[in-house]
Amino acid sequence: MANTELNGKSGVHTLSAYVANKPGVLARIAQVFARRGFNIDSLVVSSSIDGDFSRMTITAVGNPDMLDQVIRQVNKLVDVIHCFDHTGQDVVVRELALIKIGVTAEERTEALQVAEHFAAKTLDLTENSMIIMCTGRSSKLDALTGLLKKYKIIELVRTGKVVMARGNEPT
Amino acid sequence: MANTELNGKSGVHTLSAYVANKPGVLARIAQVFARRGFNIDSLVVSSSIDGDFSRMTITAVGNPDMLDQVIRQVNKLVDVIHCFDHTGQDVVVRELALIKIGVTAEERTEALQVAEHFAAKTLDLTENSMIIMCTGRSSKLDALTGLLKKYKIIELVRTGKVVMARGNEPT
Repeated sequence: MANTELNGKSGVHTLSAYVANKPGVLARIAQVFARRGFNIDSLVVSSSIDGDFSRMTITAVGNPDMLDQVIRQVNKLVDVIHCFDHTGQDVVVRELALIKIGVTAEERTEALQVAEHFAAKTLDLTENSMIIMCTGRSSKLDALTGLLKKYKIIELVRTGKVVMARGNEPT
Repeated sequence: MANTELNGKSGVHTLSAYVANKPGVLARIAQVFARRGFNIDSLVVSSSIDGDFSRMTITAVGNPDMLDQVIRQVNKLVDVIHCFDHTGQDVVVRELALIKIGVTAEERTEALQVAEHFAAKTLDLTENSMIIMCTGRSSKLDALTGLLKKYKIIELVRTGKVVMARGNEPT
């Protein structure tokens, strides 16, 4: 995996894995990471078009050499079609966040302006709260969350990154 | 978990779990599901605001009584703050999809019209392909994917569901 070298000694790595959609596959992959003390930052699993396979997108922080070993081990697992590191590739990365904030009627206009600036949508609105949905790169969602900290953040859910290579080839 | 009863004998269940952000927690949770032969349909893990905790959203299909046992076992695990079923709650559910399709210059206008109808965005465009991003309920994304099958679907990634209760209380 030459890609990992581009990222310096340690950093955030985004991996994709295609696996058979069977019970136990996720547990075995998670265990490979756990055994090496690797913390998975974010993980996204959902089934492919036909439902026979799942695609996982994993974000992990750590030493690239160590991660290389983890990837090699994951690739050896039964039911894993392939697993690779996206670092250095030209990819589209997106994430979705739902943020519930506590806002009074007076604060609402300002909060809605912030949401509008980030092209975020309001999914729910009560007398003293709202749910905002936003999509984008992780840094954009971080910026929005940072701004909304001014109000009371009641709850926050993020999907974790999904990744797709640019161009007409499959990732 | 009275919620599970609302869903009939078997169906899709969406669970949330708050866990400590440590290596190994995911592996242990995944194993509880695997041991009972439960297949996790989609899984979303991302860290909370402060980074000390992670929030997981799990979609699983199966018998509610069996799932009840799984939830009880997950709740007993070290590092699990709590885990519960959202079935029957009034929640906002969203998902994000990236779809890469192969389209010729002639087909492009029509494909863009479909994307526009679903309020989807074009993230990448080449001579013979495009990446479309769409957010919404799972059924909306299923409908979009169905329509785009007319073209060649080169690649598809979905984040899996994230869930948030309506109103001003935390989920």
